[in-house]
Amino acid sequence: MTIAPWIAALNAAVASSYPAETAALFDPGGFWRDFLALDWTLQTVEGAEEIGAFAARQGPGAGFKAVSLATDPGASEGFISFETTLGRGRGYVRLKDGRCLTLLTALEELKGHEEPLRQRRRTGLYDDPHGRNWKERLETKTDAYAEGAAPYVLIVGGGQAGLALGARLEMLGVPYLIVDKHPRVGDQWRSRYKALTLHDPVWYDHLPYMPFPDFWPVFTPKDKMGDWLESYAHALELAVWTRTECTGARYDADSGTWTVELDRDGTPITLRPAQLVMAVGNAGFPRTPQIEGQAEFTGPQMHSSQFTSGEAYAGKRVIVVGGNNSAHDIAADLVQNGAAPVLIQRSPTLIVRMTTMTDVLLKPVFSQDAVDRGISTDLADLLLASNPLRLQEVNSRRTWDQIRQDEAPFYKALADTGFLVGFGADGAGLMAYQRAASGYYIDVGACQMVMDGRIALRSGKGIARILPGGMELEGGEVLEADAIVYATGFGSMEEWVARLIDPATAERVGRCWGYGSGTPGDPGPWQGELRNMWKPTAQPGLWFMGGNLAQGRFYSGLLGLQLKARFEGIAA
Amino acid sequence: MTIAPWIAALNAAVASSYPAETAALFDPGGFWRDFLALDWTLQTVEGAEEIGAFAARQGPGAGFKAVSLATDPGASEGFISFETTLGRGRGYVRLKDGRCLTLLTALEELKGHEEPLRQRRRTGLYDDPHGRNWKERLETKTDAYAEGAAPYVLIVGGGQAGLALGARLEMLGVPYLIVDKHPRVGDQWRSRYKALTLHDPVWYDHLPYMPFPDFWPVFTPKDKMGDWLESYAHALELAVWTRTECTGARYDADSGTWTVELDRDGTPITLRPAQLVMAVGNAGFPRTPQIEGQAEFTGPQMHSSQFTSGEAYAGKRVIVVGGNNSAHDIAADLVQNGAAPVLIQRSPTLIVRMTTMTDVLLKPVFSQDAVDRGISTDLADLLLASNPLRLQEVNSRRTWDQIRQDEAPFYKALADTGFLVGFGADGAGLMAYQRAASGYYIDVGACQMVMDGRIALRSGKGIARILPGGMELEGGEVLEADAIVYATGFGSMEEWVARLIDPATAERVGRCWGYGSGTPGDPGPWQGELRNMWKPTAQPGLWFMGGNLAQGRFYSGLLGLQLKARFEGIAA
Repeated sequence: MTIAPWIAALNAAVASSYPAETAALFDPGGFWRDFLALDWTLQTVEGAEEIGAFAARQGPGAGFKAVSLATDPGASEGFISFETTLGRGRGYVRLKDGRCLTLLTALEELKGHEEPLRQRRRTGLYDDPHGRNWKERLETKTDAYAEGAAPYVLIVGGGQAGLALGARLEMLGVPYLIVDKHPRVGDQWRSRYKALTLHDPVWYDHLPYMPFPDFWPVFTPKDKMGDWLESYAHALELAVWTRTECTGARYDADSGTWTVELDRDGTPITLRPAQLVMAVGNAGFPRTPQIEGQAEFTGPQMHSSQFTSGEAYAGKRVIVVGGNNSAHDIAADLVQNGAAPVLIQRSPTLIVRMTTMTDVLLKPVFSQDAVDRGISTDLADLLLASNPLRLQEVNSRRTWDQIRQDEAPFYKALADTGFLVGFGADGAGLMAYQRAASGYYIDVGACQMVMDGRIALRSGKGIARILPGGMELEGGEVLEADAIVYATGFGSMEEWVARLIDPATAERVGRCWGYGSGTPGDPGPWQGELRNMWKPTAQPGLWFMGGNLAQGRFYSGLLGLQLKARFEGIAA
Repeated sequence: MTIAPWIAALNAAVASSYPAETAALFDPGGFWRDFLALDWTLQTVEGAEEIGAFAARQGPGAGFKAVSLATDPGASEGFISFETTLGRGRGYVRLKDGRCLTLLTALEELKGHEEPLRQRRRTGLYDDPHGRNWKERLETKTDAYAEGAAPYVLIVGGGQAGLALGARLEMLGVPYLIVDKHPRVGDQWRSRYKALTLHDPVWYDHLPYMPFPDFWPVFTPKDKMGDWLESYAHALELAVWTRTECTGARYDADSGTWTVELDRDGTPITLRPAQLVMAVGNAGFPRTPQIEGQAEFTGPQMHSSQFTSGEAYAGKRVIVVGGNNSAHDIAADLVQNGAAPVLIQRSPTLIVRMTTMTDVLLKPVFSQDAVDRGISTDLADLLLASNPLRLQEVNSRRTWDQIRQDEAPFYKALADTGFLVGFGADGAGLMAYQRAASGYYIDVGACQMVMDGRIALRSGKGIARILPGGMELEGGEVLEADAIVYATGFGSMEEWVARLIDPATAERVGRCWGYGSGTPGDPGPWQGELRNMWKPTAQPGLWFMGGNLAQGRFYSGLLGLQLKARFEGIAA
């Protein structure tokens, strides 16, 4: 069976509500990954029988009817679009021998609440009752919140994730406010170390509604990224309060509202939103190891988030603890500034060559080639999501086996320096990011510096103690150092819940991120989707928004629809 | 003959260099509008015989070879692409009975100098010799010019025209500097009257390389436009000096350089660019009529460029002299602020209903419908240029005859108020803009205010004199007034030449704009293209850049290529 008749059969089967009829259309080990089309959450249903039961439950997906968008009538996989009584969306289907291996359905809009884009865009002409023009209206947009009026949604954190969600809510007409502690939108990026650029290429990084222009560089420098976020917030007229910290929040189950305490540039303000979104990334919790003797070190010590540039370290010996992106970037920056860095790599690191990232991993979906083949960013997002996590694991292992083979000389040369190259517990490479937000290094040049000794390396040994003038490694080697940088990562997103709300709520909500892969840092049981991210949590009215730019773009749309549905009384 | 064989015949005929062979392919009254493909200027060649001679002259167009882009093989008109030894471009052809009525060829890039877009975009990774990161490099981008180093091109004026040209040169790698007297990029728009929005819809207004996003309003409010221009200059990393006025320029023919005097925020700087571009619009020369008694008026009098808002005039009687966009917008703003405006219309005005502009005039080419039909902005620009000015006149008369008929009740109601509705000397409507930069009013509501008397009207009478407390019209009527606004337009672009260079050069270069239509304000002889705009002038190294947003977008590309060709020594 090809897609069109299979889709027709699916429509009939779902409409019938008989589980067996739907189940018969799927491979026994097939998957239906559903994002809000049939139910109000993000989930992957595994196995034909479970899928049959899932489809029969109906609920918000009543009236489900899909059509194939494949242009080749003989194709066995392709994009679909669908509608339900409530909304419209798109997805992707893969068939084998007439049965479905994977089906993705992702809601894109709610009927009657379509976004003001393209043909539906606003006119820009107003009859303002107070005679205000556009600028004056924009300047007073958040005034009511300063008086205590409640936005429906409060977004804590104005980095790319918070801004992307704000953009979705702006387009959906849901009252929201973004609060961020930095002085200017984009400061999360500006304040990072001087040499930082995005490590993902531009095609992967577009924000919702306002893609990077055709001249944009492949790898965005950090200040350019910060400035773009600021332009983005302004162009979309987002409601943002900068210099505003969230200091506490508690939920009142009776009224279904939060009481959120804010410090707005010194002024305390209390807001009572119905929905509270944590879009704080991880950057709030720099993770610095506690090491004996640390207090006695005579030079500067800092977490990587405090490191700005190697300029101050010309001629100095600097120990960099860590092995992921920040550690490598900082070490390379130190070399370029005439310092002598030593990288302390305590455990194996996944190294992804830049060309592997752009020309192998992302090329089929996020590249200029893909764009030229008609794979727009929204189609690319669907393609990426079209494989459920179980298949992503299988595919990732296969891909990484191939990369290890193709890049064997590179990995060997690196290993020959003593560098510990790792590919994940089960060889699944970059899946480590979704499993445990694990770091890696996309090599833009530092590996060569390790190979030719400009970056010195000590690997596989722990740190015994810090000395006043350096560091002693396990085994007794002493390294003299003028400064130490801890590029040792960040804490976990759920720590914010304990800090801002209370430990009991944090306990109930549980961990964020990871999908129960059973690999180190991501204990089972199997979840099928990332824990707590972009979907309802155990705490009513509490949501988590985050991830890299691509995830922020795609999942902000799904979280936006969940919030809109609640705002309109469509979903509970 | 359909397009494909006709194009093949054209290629052969042009290659043959026999005038008669090319001439035979054109209708005796046919047109070849050539923008830099066959010759280094913008020109329309009229008539088969002339076209034959033109094509035979060859020159920069050597190696001309075109192909049809039409998807329907039976089509008698459609897009073409072409290349020559020097470059590549696109165009449009219309055939009738196997012969060509109109041919447009527009150069789009020079071989070996393709722009860093899409697949060719920059990586964003640098090995800066001074260890500077992106931000530091951007901050020092124009430092050398402050020391007197010469940009190859100096662009005077940083409004949309200057910025669009700067963007082209940035992409083409031609050293340039934009100077603008305002404190911030975009202030040309911010400083206008409060109620102003663009009167053209968004699809017509895109800037090069960075189109407005899909959520952008149809009619951009003036401050939003100013802010977008500022974001645009920053995203494209344009070399702009704000707070910088050009105070004088003289050309040295021996060295082929200009000596340009600048006042940069109080510091005098002399630069010696090879090319000088006037992108000053007209806004530097407000045109205020001299009227007897003007000095005795006791209230405020101002040109429309100084008017900001009606707020200060609640309850006041305000005379607005003029009948075009500014006059109507200001009068409407006064009404909304509780003032009592009187419009003094001295001569007939072309009124274009907003719906006529968006749904009749621009819809086929610049609209969401056009975008949805695959007419991207660059194709729309080619379509618009595909008709030479002679045919634009014919088409415009036909269109306006139809509009007058379709909108007869509206125009009658307006005329019944005494308003003088004009459609141009020969009924060609909006051609008046290209002929004499003549104004008009795109009705966004003020006409209804005239009809229901909220805006009072006096029309067809001159002003006899200004009185201390008002104005006396010809015929003797006296109007009492608390303030007078002269919405009487701006001077002409060539005035800048006389002011900044000298009157002799201004005389030699002659007037800008207009194409010799022989209608009032645009004397013959027939030119075929706008005078002096975006093409070589009688003064070597002197260029004029200007026009509305659509013209600035399209013609900046053509002017950019002419400057690039000179910079590279390709064109003289």
